[in-house]
Parts: sequence; C-alpha cells; structure tokens
Amino acid sequence: MLRSGKEHLETLRDGRRVFVGSEQIDDVTRHPAFRGAAETVAAIYDMKADPALRDVMSYEEDGGRHSIYFLRAKTREDLQRRMEGHRRIAELTYGMFGRSPDHVASFVTGMAMKPDALVPPCGRPDNLVAYYRHIRDNDIYTVYAVVPPQAARNPEFYQRQNIPVPTLRVVREEDDGVVIAGMKMLATGALYANDIWIGNVLPLAPDQKKEAITCAIPCNAPGLTLWARKPMALDAKSEFDSPLAWRYDESDSMLLCDDVKVPWERVFVHDDALLSRDIYIKSPSHCFGNHQSNVRYWSKMRLLLGLCSKVANATGADQVPAVRETLGKMAALESTIAGLVHGQINAFESWPAPYVCFNRRIMYAGLEWCTQNYSMFIDELRTLCGGGVFQMPADISVMENDELAAQFSTFWQTPQGDAITRMKLFKLAWDMAGSEFAGRHLQYEKFYAGASFIIRNHSFRETDWNAFNKLVDDLMATYDVPANKKKPGKVAAE
Amino acid sequence: MLRSGKEHLETLRDGRRVFVGSEQIDDVTRHPAFRGAAETVAAIYDMKADPALRDVMSYEEDGGRHSIYFLRAKTREDLQRRMEGHRRIAELTYGMFGRSPDHVASFVTGMAMKPDALVPPCGRPDNLVAYYRHIRDNDIYTVYAVVPPQAARNPEFYQRQNIPVPTLRVVREEDDGVVIAGMKMLATGALYANDIWIGNVLPLAPDQKKEAITCAIPCNAPGLTLWARKPMALDAKSEFDSPLAWRYDESDSMLLCDDVKVPWERVFVHDDALLSRDIYIKSPSHCFGNHQSNVRYWSKMRLLLGLCSKVANATGADQVPAVRETLGKMAALESTIAGLVHGQINAFESWPAPYVCFNRRIMYAGLEWCTQNYSMFIDELRTLCGGGVFQMPADISVMENDELAAQFSTFWQTPQGDAITRMKLFKLAWDMAGSEFAGRHLQYEKFYAGASFIIRNHSFRETDWNAFNKLVDDLMATYDVPANKKKPGKVAAE
Amino acid sequence: MLRSGKEHLETLRDGRRVFVGSEQIDDVTRHPAFRGAAETVAAIYDMKADPALRDVMSYEEDGGRHSIYFLRAKTREDLQRRMEGHRRIAELTYGMFGRSPDHVASFVTGMAMKPDALVPPCGRPDNLVAYYRHIRDNDIYTVYAVVPPQAARNPEFYQRQNIPVPTLRVVREEDDGVVIAGMKMLATGALYANDIWIGNVLPLAPDQKKEAITCAIPCNAPGLTLWARKPMALDAKSEFDSPLAWRYDESDSMLLCDDVKVPWERVFVHDDALLSRDIYIKSPSHCFGNHQSNVRYWSKMRLLLGLCSKVANATGADQVPAVRETLGKMAALESTIAGLVHGQINAFESWPAPYVCFNRRIMYAGLEWCTQNYSMFIDELRTLCGGGVFQMPADISVMENDELAAQFSTFWQTPQGDAITRMKLFKLAWDMAGSEFAGRHLQYEKFYAGASFIIRNHSFRETDWNAFNKLVDDLMATYDVPANKKKPGKVAAE
Amino acid sequence: MLRSGKEHLETLRDGRRVFVGSEQIDDVTRHPAFRGAAETVAAIYDMKADPALRDVMSYEEDGGRHSIYFLRAKTREDLQRRMEGHRRIAELTYGMFGRSPDHVASFVTGMAMKPDALVPPCGRPDNLVAYYRHIRDNDIYTVYAVVPPQAARNPEFYQRQNIPVPTLRVVREEDDGVVIAGMKMLATGALYANDIWIGNVLPLAPDQKKEAITCAIPCNAPGLTLWARKPMALDAKSEFDSPLAWRYDESDSMLLCDDVKVPWERVFVHDDALLSRDIYIKSPSHCFGNHQSNVRYWSKMRLLLGLCSKVANATGADQVPAVRETLGKMAALESTIAGLVHGQINAFESWPAPYVCFNRRIMYAGLEWCTQNYSMFIDELRTLCGGGVFQMPADISVMENDELAAQFSTFWQTPQGDAITRMKLFKLAWDMAGSEFAGRHLQYEKFYAGASFIIRNHSFRETDWNAFNKLVDDLMATYDVPANKKKPGKVAAE
Repeated sequence: MLRSGKEHLETLRDGRRVFVGSEQIDDVTRHPAFRGAAETVAAIYDMKADPALRDVMSYEEDGGRHSIYFLRAKTREDLQRRMEGHRRIAELTYGMFGRSPDHVASFVTGMAMKPDALVPPCGRPDNLVAYYRHIRDNDIYTVYAVVPPQAARNPEFYQRQNIPVPTLRVVREEDDGVVIAGMKMLATGALYANDIWIGNVLPLAPDQKKEAITCAIPCNAPGLTLWARKPMALDAKSEFDSPLAWRYDESDSMLLCDDVKVPWERVFVHDDALLSRDIYIKSPSHCFGNHQSNVRYWSKMRLLLGLCSKVANATGADQVPAVRETLGKMAALESTIAGLVHGQINAFESWPAPYVCFNRRIMYAGLEWCTQNYSMFIDELRTLCGGGVFQMPADISVMENDELAAQFSTFWQTPQGDAITRMKLFKLAWDMAGSEFAGRHLQYEKFYAGASFIIRNHSFRETDWNAFNKLVDDLMATYDVPANKKKPGKVAAE
Repeated sequence: MLRSGKEHLETLRDGRRVFVGSEQIDDVTRHPAFRGAAETVAAIYDMKADPALRDVMSYEEDGGRHSIYFLRAKTREDLQRRMEGHRRIAELTYGMFGRSPDHVASFVTGMAMKPDALVPPCGRPDNLVAYYRHIRDNDIYTVYAVVPPQAARNPEFYQRQNIPVPTLRVVREEDDGVVIAGMKMLATGALYANDIWIGNVLPLAPDQKKEAITCAIPCNAPGLTLWARKPMALDAKSEFDSPLAWRYDESDSMLLCDDVKVPWERVFVHDDALLSRDIYIKSPSHCFGNHQSNVRYWSKMRLLLGLCSKVANATGADQVPAVRETLGKMAALESTIAGLVHGQINAFESWPAPYVCFNRRIMYAGLEWCTQNYSMFIDELRTLCGGGVFQMPADISVMENDELAAQFSTFWQTPQGDAITRMKLFKLAWDMAGSEFAGRHLQYEKFYAGASFIIRNHSFRETDWNAFNKLVDDLMATYDVPANKKKPGKVAAE
Repeated sequence: MLRSGKEHLETLRDGRRVFVGSEQIDDVTRHPAFRGAAETVAAIYDMKADPALRDVMSYEEDGGRHSIYFLRAKTREDLQRRMEGHRRIAELTYGMFGRSPDHVASFVTGMAMKPDALVPPCGRPDNLVAYYRHIRDNDIYTVYAVVPPQAARNPEFYQRQNIPVPTLRVVREEDDGVVIAGMKMLATGALYANDIWIGNVLPLAPDQKKEAITCAIPCNAPGLTLWARKPMALDAKSEFDSPLAWRYDESDSMLLCDDVKVPWERVFVHDDALLSRDIYIKSPSHCFGNHQSNVRYWSKMRLLLGLCSKVANATGADQVPAVRETLGKMAALESTIAGLVHGQINAFESWPAPYVCFNRRIMYAGLEWCTQNYSMFIDELRTLCGGGVFQMPADISVMENDELAAQFSTFWQTPQGDAITRMKLFKLAWDMAGSEFAGRHLQYEKFYAGASFIIRNHSFRETDWNAFNKLVDDLMATYDVPANKKKPGKVAAE
Repeated sequence: MLRSGKEHLETLRDGRRVFVGSEQIDDVTRHPAFRGAAETVAAIYDMKADPALRDVMSYEEDGGRHSIYFLRAKTREDLQRRMEGHRRIAELTYGMFGRSPDHVASFVTGMAMKPDALVPPCGRPDNLVAYYRHIRDNDIYTVYAVVPPQAARNPEFYQRQNIPVPTLRVVREEDDGVVIAGMKMLATGALYANDIWIGNVLPLAPDQKKEAITCAIPCNAPGLTLWARKPMALDAKSEFDSPLAWRYDESDSMLLCDDVKVPWERVFVHDDALLSRDIYIKSPSHCFGNHQSNVRYWSKMRLLLGLCSKVANATGADQVPAVRETLGKMAALESTIAGLVHGQINAFESWPAPYVCFNRRIMYAGLEWCTQNYSMFIDELRTLCGGGVFQMPADISVMENDELAAQFSTFWQTPQGDAITRMKLFKLAWDMAGSEFAGRHLQYEKFYAGASFIIRNHSFRETDWNAFNKLVDDLMATYDVPANKKKPGKVAAE
C-alpha cells in the first residue's frame, strides 16, 4: 500500500503530546512552526505514490506494492534501485531531511535481511520480521531515538549523587508487555512520523540490561511526551526570507516516557546490553540506514554546489580565476560523495546470503567524509557570499512601502540581476550558511553519526587489518639483512 | 569630556532615519530590536567615565580628559595603555562589538599622528586634525562605511547596461560643501553612533575620483537612510534564551544617501582616488584601528575558551584525556592571540616621529590569524557541545507550566548541574556557535578586513622582501660550485 | 604479443644516452643506480605474461593477445577489467611507479577510442591508430614528456632578453619528417621505457604553433639526451636500509633534443596549438590515463595503511584509543580512494560510442583528492613513527660487529618484536615518509597532474553548471515575494 | 670564560665512543660525516667570543664573562637580552641546530633560578647550582637525553615477557657515586658537545624510582657509547648539492650506558620519580629552554620565507596574484612566530622572585604552533617549487664535462637567472623541503617537544581555568529565568 500525502497527514492528527517550550501543539500539520515541514513530508508520500514514478519509487512483493526502500536487495541492480529511490526523496528536500521516511525503514529492512542477528531468547527475530512487514505493508513512517541523554551515559554519576538516572529503561514487565520510563534523545522527525523505534546504537555496559530495551511505539503512545527544540520556522518572516527553515525543518525532540506500555510483539531486544547494539552491525541494518544518509548528503552537496555557482555569478566573482578554481574544487567535492555512493554499489558485498549489501567500508568512508567536512563546505559558501548577505534589507517587507521599494529596485540591482532576485538568492544562501536553520545543520551533520571516534571505530572494525599487515609483511619478506651479516636470532641465542 | 551612558543615549534620539524591512524605527534606544545593544553602548560610556577607572580609560591633554583611545602614543608604555583601554571595552561585550567606540576613533587618531599623509590639495590635513579634536573633546562615537556595495565595484558593468552605478559619490560641489549620493556598505554600529566616516579602504581605480570622497556626516544627516539588516535580538524569546543576541547585536546597515550635504570642514579627501586609500596605510591609521580588532578578538577567544571549558564540564567530557587535550589546544589558541597583541607592543616601531606605532607586520599576522581561523575555533565549541544543544527545551517558558517545570528539573539535571543552569549554559553556547547571531559573527569575522587576499596583501606590502631575499643570497654566497668545475659565466660567454 | 621481463630488459640496451650529473650510464639495467627499478619493470612484464594471470592481465583482439590496458572498453565489465589490470600492476610496486607501462598506454588507448578528436589536417588520426596498434602488438613501454620547462612557459620572457626559448619545438620540416629541438620535462620512467610520447597537456597560446608538435620517439633516438635527476638508489646502503628506493625509483629525466628527426608516421598533431591539448580532453585519453593514476594511488594508500598499522603495533601505540581512532580514520581514507575508483565504474559514461568511459567527474574528484592530501597522509605516518625512526642505528652494518650486534639485539628488542624486525619496519616506514625517496614522492604526488588549479579547471570544465544552477532556480521558482508585496519588475518599470 | 671555536673542537677529541653503523668514528671534527657540523659549532663559539659582539653575546657575573644564555633574568630587559642572544646563535644555523649550546644551558639556568624546586633529600639543589656555575664558567656545551626508548615506556611489557627493560636506570650505588646502565634517547648534538644531561621530561610512574636519576656525564665517560643515526652529510655529493646537510646536521644518537659511574656531585635527583620531572616545570627551566626553541624556529621561518620568495622569483610565479597572496600569507606566518616571541617578553611573569620569566602560556602557544604547523609550512615551499626541483641535473658535476656544461648553461638559464644560480637555489630549497635532511627536520619539529598531547597538557596545566570559567559564570550571573517563571531550586524542592 502506498499512502498519499493527505492520508499521511491524517495519521498525524492522533492526539500526540508535543510541547514547544510551554506551548502544547494541537496539530502539527496546521501549526505555523510545523506545517511547512508537514507539507514536505506529504509531498514525499505523494511522490512515492505517483504512478509516473511507479517503477522508481516502489516495488512489488508478497502481493502488494511497497516503497522501494523496503526492498531486500539480492543483486547489484537492487542496490542501485534503492539508491535511486533514496535520491529522489533526498532531492525533494535538497538533503535537508535527515530522517525522511526512508531512513529508519532502511535500518529495519537491513535487519530483516538477517533476523538471526537478533539471537533469542533476548532477541526476538519474529517480532522484527513482523514489524518490518507491518511498516512496509502500511507505509508507516518510523523514526528513532537511540541515544541516551548527554551526560547521562555514565549511570554511576547519578547513583553516587542519588539522582535518578534519566535514561529510558524498562521499569517493569507485565503479561502483555513491558513498561518503559525515562528520556531518550533525539527523535528527529518524530513530529511528522507514526512510530518511534527505541534502541541503542552506542555500546552499553554489560550491566545496563534494563536500558537495552529495543522496541517500537506509536507517537501517540499514552505517557509519551515529545519536547521539541526551538522550531526554526517560527522566526521566519516569510517563505521568501527563510525558504529552507520554512519547509525543511524536520524537528528534533527529546522523548520522555512516563510509564509507556510496549506490547511484547513490538519488543525486539530485551535484557541484553551487548545484543541491543549488535543487531545493527551484525546485520546490514547500520549499512543500509547510513547508505541513505550518504545519498541524502549528496543532494545537499548538489544544492550547495548550485548555490556556490549562483552566488559567484551574482557577485561577478565567477570572472576571477581563483574563484573559478574554487568552483572547480567544490564540483570535485560534489563528485566525491557521488563517487563514494556509486562505489558502494560497484564494490557491493555478497552478504548476508541470499542478499547483498552496500560495501561497508566505503559507506563508512562516506560517513566519515560527510561528518568531518560539512563545516568546511559551508565555509566555502560563506566565503563566496562575502558581505553580500548583510547588504540585503532585513526582510522582503520593504516591497510594501512604495518609496523603499523603488529605492531598493534601483540601488540594489546589478548587471547580474534585479534587486529582488538577488535578495532571494542571498536569503536562500544565508538560510544554508548563516541562519539558525543553517546552524542546526552545521551541528547536525557533525554529529550525524555521533562523535568522530564512533565513525572511525566503525571503520576500524570493518577493516581487515590482517590483510594490510600482511601487505607489509610480504614486502619485508622479500629482502633481508645482507648475506654477510649475522641474523638476530642467532645473536640473541648466544 | 567624558559622556555618561545616559548622555550618549540622548544623542541617539536625533531623528535619524532607520528602517528594518518596511518598519521605520523611531527610537533605537527603546525599540526591542535595538535597546539591548543601546544599553551595552551606554555601559561602555559609563565605564569610561567611571572615576575608579580614570587612569585606565582616559588621559589628559589640551586641558581636557579624553577617552584613552584618542591617545597619540609616544612610548611603548603609551601603546600598552591603549591596549589596556581597548581590552576593557572589549571585555564588556566579550568581543562581540566589532565597531565599539574605540574602533574608528583609533583610525582617526592614527591619522592624526601623521596628518601630512593627507597630501593637499586633495587631502585636507587641517580638517582631519580638527575632526580628531572634535570627536576627542566631545567623546563622539564614530563608525564608518568604507566599502562600495558588493558587485558594484566595477562601474563599467553598470555603464554597459545603462544602470546607474549605486556606489556613493560626489554629485555636485557647492560653496558650503559637497553633495553626496548613493550607497555604501556596511555601517556596522551606526544605529548607536553619532557620526559616520565615509571613505575607501579598498583601492579605487584612478578614474574613480568622484567616489574618492572621504568625509564624516552625522547619523541624522538630512537625506541619509540606514537600512538595517535583520536584527538578531528580534527573534530572541528572552535574554535567557539568547543572551548574546539580546545585548550585543551591534547592527549592520546599508547607508543610502539621497543628496546629503557635507560641509567642507568635514571633507578630508576629495577627488583623489589613490590618496583616498593611502591615508590609512601611510599613517598609523590602519594599524591603530586593526590593533583594536586584535584586542577585541582576544576577548572573544577568552569567552570561547571559558565556554569550551564549561561545556566540557557540563557534559562530563572534561574527564576524557582527548577532551583535555582539546582544551589545552584551545588554551594555546587563546594565548596565541594574547601573544600577538603583546608582541605588537614589544616590537613596536618608532614611527611616525615623534610617535610610536604597534608593529605592523605582527598586527597583520594577528589579523590574518583571526580571520582565517574563526570558523575553526567555533567548530571546536560545536564539537564539544555535541547534541547537547538540541536536547534542551525550545525555550525557558517551560518553567511557566508546573508539570513541565517539575519534569524538566528532574530529568534534565545531571551530577554536573541542575537543569536550568545547564540549559542556561547551552543556550549561551548555542548563541556563540549556532544561532543566527552566531552565524552573523562567523560571516563577520571572516570578512572583518575583507577577503583573505586583502589582508595578505597588507602583509606582503609591509614585508621587507629584500631582507629575506638577502638571507638566502648571503647563505648561497658562502659556497660555490666545487673548485674543479667551470663557472657558468665563462661557459655562457664562450 | 606479451614480452617477458628478460625480453624487455634487452630492449633497454639500445645505446640510449643517459647522464647522471657528468656520468654517462652505459646500461641502465646493470648500473647500481637503476638496476633495481629495471628489475621491477621486468617483473611487471613477467606478471603480464604469466599464464596463471592470463585472463586478468591480457585480452585477445585482432588475432593477438595484448596487455589488458590496451582494451578499448565497450561495457562496464570492460572497465572493471581494466581497473583490475591496473591494480595488479600497481600492487607490484605498491603504487610507487607512477609511469608504469599501463599509464601512457592508457592515454593512447583512450585516444584510439576517438581518433576523430585529432581533427585533420593538423591532427593525424591514422597515425595515432597505427601507433596504438604498434605499441599494443609489440608490448611497447611508452612514457611521456608533455610539459615545457618551468619558467619557460612564457616565451616573451625569453625573447625580451634575447635568450633562446628552451622549450622543445619543431625547428624544420623535411620530406620524411619533422626535426625537433629543445627541452621538455619530465620524462618519468624514460630510462626503463622504449618510447617517449611528446606533447602538451597544458594549454598553449594560439601562436605557439611550433611547440604544438605531438609525436613519439624512441628512447635511443639520435640527438636525444636524458638528464636524470639524482637517483635515490645511489645513496642506499643496502636494500634492507632503503627498500623502496632500492627497487622503485622510477627515475625522472629532462629530455633534451638536439635536432631529433621524427618521421611523419609518428607525428600526431602538428602546427595547431589548441588541438595539441584538446586531443586529451575531447577523447577518453585523459580520463583513461588518470584513472590508472587513481588506481595506482590506491595501492600506495594500501601500503600506507599497512605501515600505519604495523608501526602502531611496533610501538605499542595501537593500545591507545586515540591511535585506534587514527587507524580507523586512515582506513576510511583508504576506502575513500577505493570508493572513488569503484564509483567511476558504476557511474560510467556511454561515451564515445560505441565505447564507454570511466565517469570523468568522479575521476577528477579522485585526482583532486589524491594530489591535495598526500602530504597530510604521510604526515600521519610520521606522527605514528614518532622518534622511533631516529633511535635505529645508522644502518644494518651494525650486525657485522659482534659486540654491536649483541647489544643491538638485546637493547633494541621490545615485547612487540625483535631488534632487526623492528629496524626493518622503521627503515621501510622512513623510506615511505622521511627519506629522499619519500621527499620525491611528496613532491611528485602534489604535482602529479600539475598545479592544483589545473585539476580544478578539469573539474570545472566537466561540470554541467546549468544543471546545478537550475537546481537553485527551480527551488527559487517555487516561492515568491509574499502576495501583498509589489513585484520588482513593476517597480523598476515605473 | 668564553671559548674560541678552535678550543671547543679540541675538547671533542676526547676518546668518546661513537658508532655509525659498524664504523667507529675516531674524530668527529675530521670525519666527513660530521666535520661540517663541527665547524658550525665552532663558528657559534667564535661568534660568542667575538669582541664586536661582546655586549650582545655575553655578560659579566661573579668576576667572569659568560655566554648570555647563562643570564638569570631580573628584568624585562634581561629577557630581551637573552632573546637577542638566542637569535644570533639561531641565525648562524638558520634554525637548523635545535640543540645548539644555548638550549640545555637555558634549562639549567632556569633551574638555577629556583634551585629549591629540587626538594631534598632526593633533590640536590647545591649540586645543581654548582653544575650551573661549572658550565657557565667553563663555557661547556651540554646536551641532553631525557626520554626513554620508544616502546620501552611501559616496563611491565618487558617484565611479562622476561626481557630486560632497556631504559637507563641506576643499577647500584657506591660510595663515590651511582652506576647507571641502559639506553636513553635521543642525545641530539651529543657528538659536538661536552656533557650530556640525563633526566626525564616525561612523567614517570611513582615506582620508576631507579629511572628517576637526573645527572650529568661527560661525552667520553667510560662505558658510554653513542649510536648515531644515519648522518645526512654522508650522502651529500658536495656542499653545492646539499648545503644544509653539509653544515647543519646536528646528529642524533642513542645513548647506551654499560655501567657508567656518575659521581655524587653530578647527581641532581635520585630515587624520586615525581620530582625528576617536576624540576623542569616548577622552575623556569622548561620555559627558558623552550623559549630558545621558539626563537630558533623563528630563524628557520625566516630562511623559509626567503626561500619562498626567491623560488617564486626564479619561476616567475611571483607575478601571479595568487602566488603573491601566498607570499603574503607566509610573511604573516613568519610574523606570527616573531610576535609570539616578542609577546613572551612583553607579558613576562614576575616569577620566581627575584627573577622574571617569559610568559609561560604564550611560550607554550608558540611551541604548539611550531610543532603543529611545520609540515604545512614546508608544504608551501614544495608547492612553490613545483616540478622545478626535478628538472635540475643530478648534481653539479655536470660542469666538469664541457659539452654538458655548455648545454646546461644554455638551456637551463631563464630570464630570471643563469643556470647555475637557479640550480643552486633549487638544490638549497630541496635540502629544506625534500632531501633526507629535510625529512629529518619534518620529523624533528613535529616531535620537538614530544607528541602533541604533551604540549597541550603543558598548555592545559599553565592555564588558570577558574578565571575562564568565571568569565562565563559572571556573564550568566547577570541575567536569569524571566521574572514570571519559576526558579528551578523551588521546583526541585517540591
């Protein structure tokens, strides 16, 4: 089943409990802080259901037609199809929606390709497969909250000072399910989604059994409150002045559970700290989910490259050789992520049988590249903008006053463009590089997959060090201490 | 004369014409977008006039007591006094006010130390000295607008397309002065100042004579309109939520002159394109003005270092060796700008007689360091913050709702601090690293002194290349082609 | 025909005129400065001819079996085969041979896929195709010299001072060919090759017609002298002490022609300055040649990664979390070039019909990444080595003295390894990161494809800027000045 | 007493036991591997004794005239004098001698300004003061070896595998002194020095008492062998071809003690692991020693800047705006270290009474800047050189052959210079950026003061974190939760 955008918006009016500061939000699809992004999500659903894009955006299986990102890939071509599907979705938001409907769905799909990674009894593979079918067949939008609150990662800290550990955990088991309580960060996209997957992508200590709960709950679960961070759209004077914040602020929320009941059939891992993380990396889950993020980032790079080009045109700087060199460099950067995405397909892994997986090391290389460099990429756009962003009027309301409008149109035009088009461009560039929306993305991309050591540890783990050590050993084995010299073994033995 | 803060605020209610979008601002000292910053400026004036700081913040000359930044330095100790004065002012705003009252005053003072750099007849040294005395004696706050609008730097562009060149120029001369019209960017601080110095810090083409006008006009000059960029304070929900934007948004405005009359006694350079820029670099003007910027940046680095430390404490990351190493590195960076400021004094130049000047090459090295690295420094704070900035509630209004307040206080506390103190810290850090106010500073520091090649050209110009070439020549002169080999000269002559 | 290594070495004893300083080299295959590298080239030939590698290293066409790098690719699989062939060759030298036999051969092959890029009459497509067949069928090793001497790029310089322009040019035409004279840099690998391709990869000015000559000459052409730079192997005390310099110093030579005759059938472009460069970029020539370089660099990264790992093991630093993070980062870098190579295949271009080409933008992205970052990658190895490289004895001759040998074996051993194995590893690491051989590679990789602006210009040229500008235009077209505001067109028209 | 160079060379012919590989060196002042550097050291002594430089290079105290670097500074002017003295010495070697005679002398002098940092009974302040007077009065050249062998830092490693711990330690105490045995790295400069200071600049574990020995021994002490790393001068074909290696290779040696007796009066710390390191950082010792290194590095930057300029001239690239920008940037970098050196003086500390000290935080900022950036600085020179370094002949012996000499002189000349002068310049640049000598300096500067975390820990330790935290606390104390909102304390108390 493929939902329409309208149908999806209906599902969001479900009584969920959302706060922005002290303001409770009745309907995220209509509130000015959120309606723009809600419409963006609806547009994604409409695109998926568009008959013209039928082959690109969906596939058939088990008698139904499903979003392409539920496809369990068996061939290189299947991986290519997944990538194309992610790309269409990403391009709709210019990569601004990190947790679009295909993100967590890819995690679940990757896990459903190797359910035996959920080792019983603490793992519940059947529940996982059933959940996969459920969200696939009903076109459910699932997001996740898989990280404990910052500074709460060390429970001893709290215990020593007799403060309750705030991290979400199982507080009791009942016949029909578990009851969870506590806080988890950071349910990005939750305001526009149906379900929240709760789990642990960071390693837990073995004794953190009760925190090991991995499950899915609906966004309107009784006892669940979503504490939204400041919505960027709220400060936007108009779509013209803040076009990205207006439409693409996907929201981030702290998830606070006050005794939320989770039925057993939605529990995937229970009481096993190690397993609760292993399920992501011992199945294609982490790889499929983060491949989506590589593809999404690529769309962002494409918008960034377009903005660099347009801004350089607008200032006339594109005539300067050094600026053309910068544009060539930025184009190479866009091609780099393109190459890394394509490379993951060309060097795919035949794992887990009978399925195939994107090349994991290249995927992590992409993730490393993306998270390490976003600040620098945006800095290039800043450099190209120069002071241009500040010479524009505070907002487009200048056009409401005849005298100001006339002056603006006369004085702010340049040979490269009329005043309003230039202002439109610079406001857009500012929303990419300088606004609070931009600031959120600078923070977000840097911590997309956690602190840098986390990604590097993934890269370390997936590397076959023996092969690389052997390369050096083999080279060294081909020559030796010159013949007339004594060998160390002998000397040491004397 | 040393004004009080209250006296200064009075001078701002002078009928100046200021627009924010289409909204005309009646009184910048009372409008919510500007009153916080206006109070900050008043606090600077109060500090200068504080009897307890009399020796630090002021000096006596010509029968009056003046702000220290008007001191024409004759000794190393005088330079030290200037530096200390700048530092006090900078620390009051944590370096957030780039164009505090001591900035342009230092440019004017530097020029008044070598008025003969304003070569007559196009230069008018007497007017300059008189203006120096005027602002010194009346404690005037002068800012400047010394750059043409972006993309308008090539007048031919406009002429070819028959569009009026928007750059400010002299449109006619009259008995009592010149009349100027057009646009100039970017009068930072103008909303809180008394006068605007108009000039050209970027080189003009020789035929841009009419743009070469260098003069000073009051902020309420008839015909003058200030088009403010979006004020950051306007989006602040409260001082708690956006403490830096609330107080320290110094404002940037495009200056638009619709036939503004400038009396001859306020004209400093007229009709000489080359001279209009030379006056800054052939006198200590540029050096004194930018020394202030080095000192100001230092104060910002001090706040940044404090924030890095406090945030690392708040997350508990300060216990991690790698984070302590980062803090050590950041501390070294703070010491670097400290060292560069002090170094300019220790290696002072005895120029122009009978005065002394900060070491110019070290000052430009400081400027280069500051502008090249700000993005990177802020990126370190982002890294230390991690996702912590997004786990805080949208704003402090949560405390208005009893239930939310109780939950917040319980769940957001950590062993390192109570919920509100942590939120306060992260909101402050976000205003430094992620908010639109932060975005403006990231743009501002990068272009503080223009594009990077401009600063490097200053550095190139002040370097005695002969001395460095000689170093290599002298080294090479001490050895030669081995004796038994032929010399090139001979062979070439054959 | 596939030559054996021995057969190839025979071809090098052909009377070529080679100088190292004032020493003329009789036989590069036996001289201590060059024999190690000559043997390496022989090993490449042997590998290509090895029946066990028949399918990987060669293919059949026109009734013969040829080295795989002459394959004109018609499918994605063909591209994959080429890549695998390059990889085998590169791994044999750990990427140290930039101009292995597959490099220029790939340029020629790419050109032979689109000979009409050699537009007559100045271009001679038939000669090119004939030359392609000649080197393919006879397994010829061709290198090139395609850059004018540094500082000689501006002929006016020379003319103004009445100094002869040293750059190689046609000095006269004769019935049976052209006569060339002058200097060209930098014929890397020429000492071990059969032919030298002479051409221009940098743009010429339109009037540099006589320099536009593009042709091939044998390394023993009468009148040709090769001036070798300092051979790194000469300073090697032993293979143990300098294993990379010993074997893999491919040599760089200035090529000096004193009236060398080139028969017409070896002339490919004549008298057309623009065309002499266009033939590389308007055919797959530049792409095929530089794809090889991406693959080769990948092999170097593999050795580098192995060295990082082994050195970290040897010092015990691999137990430090921060060092493991570094290793994870380096592993991600190795995967990055792997991904870029694979990505060029997955995103191949169907051009020029009926052939296919590696994705050009991704290839240039790889080239940019490789040239920009080599210094940094080597710096990581330096960091991992620490002072370890200097605590080893000057050379392995210590083992010749019993007392020293005993002390060395006792005191230099560590729990991670015996003294000699550690010394062997650190000498190898030093040859990668610190020796003069390493210094040459640091210089070489940085200028592999010329100054950075050259690569970025390739990237700029191959980018479809309209597509990226359109992305921004399309986004901006979806919203406008709010309805109640005037449109700029109208105001401007008033 | 001030030694002449000749007198100093005499002191080096003292029977010291030095090995290069298996070759024992009889007389370092005459052996081709070392005589160039020995003459350089002699030149430093001659300069110090030069009557014309009497006031700059020496001072009087206790009835004698001493090298200026023994001056215990009591005023800012004294610090300035020390800096000038270091600068003269550094300029003589263009900063290539890290361990020139003023380096360890500064450590000892700094310690002699606060001998009570050597807390008895394990510390022996009287011995230290006596040693200070001894080396001052006799103009002794002392170097040091203060780091254990790499990988030997964890003694348990060795013990577990039953391998002797190689680190130097006290093996027995006797009436007239202690007996030490084992290895210590890396006695840079020892071949040209008189004494070696043995100690520990890295922290020891508390139980490493026997390694805590801090003492001084003569370079010819019975039982002491110096194992030199490969001497760079040995590969130099001529001074013309390798001018820096020829003269300035200061040597690095592993120090191996086979039961060396140290009389009690040369023992400074004994049996106190903590104290053995504290003596450097609880006295001005570390600061004075590393101030010298800042000054020395500055001289290197000056040569580097000269080379950048000359090379850009030689290639004609100095006419390219982007290259001039690079030169401006490099000039700013040279000014940065200049500023940091001067800043340490201007911001001097009045400690320890009655003496004064360079500003420690700025000194560490300098050290951080120097060690972090050397690779990057050299990379700029590489970039400016381009392929020019490889187009030069292998060595200057080409001038011995008439035909080659004529061709060389004709073809290698450019409008910027004759062939030999260009070759001379590029050989020099290569010795700075690409030769094995250059490789050693790239390694050396990076590890000058140990791994980067060590320097950052110094910076961390010297920073008054309370002051920076207070800055943030004070700012946050000036605003609060808005008045109408509840305070956290109250809620939490409910």
